[in-house]
Amino acid sequence: MIKQVEFSLKPYARGYHIITQEVVEQLPGLPRMGLLHLFIKHTSAGLAVNENADPSVLKDFEAIFNHLVPENLPFLEHTIEGPDDMPAHIKAAMIGSSVTIPITNGQLNLGIWQGIYLCEFRNQARSRTLVATIYD
Amino acid sequence: MIKQVEFSLKPYARGYHIITQEVVEQLPGLPRMGLLHLFIKHTSAGLAVNENADPSVLKDFEAIFNHLVPENLPFLEHTIEGPDDMPAHIKAAMIGSSVTIPITNGQLNLGIWQGIYLCEFRNQARSRTLVATIYD
Amino acid sequence: MIKQVEFSLKPYARGYHIITQEVVEQLPGLPRMGLLHLFIKHTSAGLAVNENADPSVLKDFEAIFNHLVPENLPFLEHTIEGPDDMPAHIKAAMIGSSVTIPITNGQLNLGIWQGIYLCEFRNQARSRTLVATIYD
Repeated sequence: MIKQVEFSLKPYARGYHIITQEVVEQLPGLPRMGLLHLFIKHTSAGLAVNENADPSVLKDFEAIFNHLVPENLPFLEHTIEGPDDMPAHIKAAMIGSSVTIPITNGQLNLGIWQGIYLCEFRNQARSRTLVATIYD
Repeated sequence: MIKQVEFSLKPYARGYHIITQEVVEQLPGLPRMGLLHLFIKHTSAGLAVNENADPSVLKDFEAIFNHLVPENLPFLEHTIEGPDDMPAHIKAAMIGSSVTIPITNGQLNLGIWQGIYLCEFRNQARSRTLVATIYD
Repeated sequence: MIKQVEFSLKPYARGYHIITQEVVEQLPGLPRMGLLHLFIKHTSAGLAVNENADPSVLKDFEAIFNHLVPENLPFLEHTIEGPDDMPAHIKAAMIGSSVTIPITNGQLNLGIWQGIYLCEFRNQARSRTLVATIYD
């Protein structure tokens, strides 16, 4: 059996944000056992699973990925949407557009330190649309 | 219910290529609701979902990933297959070997600016084999 | 139909390790056709599919990712768990927390050169817990 729901997150500023609770509140009842697939319908933001405890981890994510994929690299051609746009596409490809998480005993079977990240790569961040698909 | 099909893409040159239409043409009829999992059976090419509109984005992908993972890093040991080989494995790990995309109303539920990318990291690119698995 | 099993790997040192056989031995009987989803319940290790033949590839993975995401970047804030910790979270986000692999004819349908990697990013590596979910 399969259930699917499409919904929008509230808008987030550029950066890394833990959205586990916001996502769970949008889901229909979870099966005893299954999988949650979460997909973001945008190419300048991404989804990940990572550390859910220390806010400085989120700041360091922003700092390291900006260091890895800096803005204004001199050889870029796709610059019309601003210096944050092309790095956003690259970061989205590195982080990924979806996560798949096991469901066990009717709950997301995340590790104790794991949360779902919205990775917002644009300066002018609008609300992002996700599609959640649940299998059992 | 599950359907699965294995097929080869036409050969592509090194670079980033939008293959959405070529993939869809290989799929059996899509269910009303479900998931498409697309897997590449190679370790020097990858699959991603990213921007489908401006060809300069594809060129900038090539430029930025070559900048991030340059050829001929002096400390490499696995050089026997050429200077593009080991960077290709790293890029494949960064981009990923598969994408999973929701199916809604009988169609891939991609965002309006999203397409499926074949990321070809080798200079001498052969035809790549994919496995598509569709759940409903 | 769905089957799920949670299990711990034996401990691995920091680095990249091929765990295909160890994973397969933990799985219940595979269906004729389906998908295997493998999830790691940790945020400083990752799972990938990559080259399974030359041990120097594994060493080059370690060298290149350390080059990409070095320790002791001066701007980091989350340093309390050691200099390998924050780079481990970043590498985990780049590599990913799960892989999904097609099952065909009752076997993992990997390419001939593909294996499942445990990517262990911590110096003091403990045993890691995985959740395997199999659909048919």
